[in-house]
Amino acid sequence: MQQLRRDPILGRWIIVQDEKQISPNDYIEQSVGAKQIGKFCPFCVGNEAKSPPDIFVDKTPGAEQSWNLRVIANKFPALRIEGDLDRQGIGIYDQMNGIGAHEVIIETPDHQKDIADLSTEEAAKIIFAYKQRFLDLKQDSRFQYILIFKNHGQSAGASLEHSHSQLIALPIVPKKIKEALRGAEKYYGFKERCVYCDIIDQELEAQERMICENENFLAFSPFAACTPFEIWILPKKHCSHFYLISEDLLYDFSAILKDVLWRLKKILTDPPFNFIINTAPIQHEQELGFYHWHMQILPKLTRAAGFEWGTGFYINPSPPEQTAKLLREVV
Amino acid sequence: MQQLRRDPILGRWIIVQDEKQISPNDYIEQSVGAKQIGKFCPFCVGNEAKSPPDIFVDKTPGAEQSWNLRVIANKFPALRIEGDLDRQGIGIYDQMNGIGAHEVIIETPDHQKDIADLSTEEAAKIIFAYKQRFLDLKQDSRFQYILIFKNHGQSAGASLEHSHSQLIALPIVPKKIKEALRGAEKYYGFKERCVYCDIIDQELEAQERMICENENFLAFSPFAACTPFEIWILPKKHCSHFYLISEDLLYDFSAILKDVLWRLKKILTDPPFNFIINTAPIQHEQELGFYHWHMQILPKLTRAAGFEWGTGFYINPSPPEQTAKLLREVV
Repeated sequence: MQQLRRDPILGRWIIVQDEKQISPNDYIEQSVGAKQIGKFCPFCVGNEAKSPPDIFVDKTPGAEQSWNLRVIANKFPALRIEGDLDRQGIGIYDQMNGIGAHEVIIETPDHQKDIADLSTEEAAKIIFAYKQRFLDLKQDSRFQYILIFKNHGQSAGASLEHSHSQLIALPIVPKKIKEALRGAEKYYGFKERCVYCDIIDQELEAQERMICENENFLAFSPFAACTPFEIWILPKKHCSHFYLISEDLLYDFSAILKDVLWRLKKILTDPPFNFIINTAPIQHEQELGFYHWHMQILPKLTRAAGFEWGTGFYINPSPPEQTAKLLREVV
Repeated sequence: MQQLRRDPILGRWIIVQDEKQISPNDYIEQSVGAKQIGKFCPFCVGNEAKSPPDIFVDKTPGAEQSWNLRVIANKFPALRIEGDLDRQGIGIYDQMNGIGAHEVIIETPDHQKDIADLSTEEAAKIIFAYKQRFLDLKQDSRFQYILIFKNHGQSAGASLEHSHSQLIALPIVPKKIKEALRGAEKYYGFKERCVYCDIIDQELEAQERMICENENFLAFSPFAACTPFEIWILPKKHCSHFYLISEDLLYDFSAILKDVLWRLKKILTDPPFNFIINTAPIQHEQELGFYHWHMQILPKLTRAAGFEWGTGFYINPSPPEQTAKLLREVV
């Protein structure tokens, strides 16, 4: 029987279908496929002149390799960094000029590698770069929210195959974030507890949706997963701001991220996916009791259609309990 | 320069890029392509036994053709019609059993035709069938919302190419509808006018986003279009419930729908698209002053990626003023 499951924060409903067991092989036609060899790539070592200059770079002193990781401005930005904010009404409509920052984190000099293939130390350089860029951009008073995300594979929106993630700083707090804050605050108002902390307790207790954990983080498939194999990674200790991540936590986060991406890559033969770091808006300088930063990994295995557009519902053909079990058992 | 435009009802922001003029040809690789000839189709005349029995059928008395339009239960329903509603808590989570209706409207017996190719009389049969099924299902007290939608082309979620639309009756009012109602009610509370009526006035006055109109309906590309070539069709006279459509209006609606789908098909060489009828929830028996039913047509020409997932923003590379002009000029 189909179930309707409610997202405990956003309040949207998901239809989870558990009538037929779907095998990971049913999704494999979505695989990203082998990377092209020999084709020009602007993110590869030696081609630095073909991309914007470094905003941030990680180098090993004395190493032969010229860099381990680079952050550059996006050559085709969704928003422009130059200018002042200008809000304007056009009759009943509202518009603003498109001010923002749009950066690209080139995660590795190796064209053939993804985060799943890196060492934990190499993955930690990526998370460190996210934190550094976040700390820098949050000083710009024009910005209210910073989103870090990754598109992996063409059908998940990646236009280049060399492993990279992106950062966008926005002059407003986006609707989706406001909704999550509102949902979490409502729960807090009722229970005087963080909803994410309660989710962590319940998932660790129930175990059926758990994938893996380490000292400071856990990874599970959420109760109201909106796509097959959706994964959440949360710090076990309450914290609303990603950028407050300490050196210890940064290492543990990198380890669990690399681990779950490796499991996904194994079981679904390198699926397209998006990941997002959900964190509190930057104008809240203080820790928020009701919000808890977390990463959301969304494999791109199904297509949103008229029903999803019309309702905001999602249909998930793979119950998270089944997919968590499969991900737990990957060796 | 990019612009940020605010959706006047949902409050979400859209990034509209107008730096380079995108030609319709840039989207043509998305085309649905020619229909297959000779392959078995369960929706074709003669194969009725291979699909569920008729719930509703349109026949011309004495005609050779056995039917003009059929409505059947979906063979693979997202929700099941049998059973009682049952809400349940699982720790902090909430679930419901998946009760609902899921029907398919087979729009024409002709495998080669789409709505764009039909006569207005034939298209009117489709809208009439929507209304009849709506009136029937709204009597079921388990349902709170009825969504009518169409997926055209595989990348827009259609699993069969024979022209059809779908109806889903839901036991709850979906989040997206609640948000639209809330946004429209807030505007009404401030202005004491329907926001959609104000949009109609402004679009008819400005003309730059208009596509076409007839006595009772207008079609335009909305100010904060979230996809290239997004189109809205609204009745000029205020009405919150689609199912209250009169015979005259039904004919005019069919004429304008067929017209805009034909323009889209011409200019984008048969693009994949979704359409949705947005209407008031069925438990509101009375006309709502603040809500206005309308159809939204969303061509599937861009891909939502990490940024859209993370923020609820959309990036639209084609300003609606440009696409409306192109659609106006189709001959």
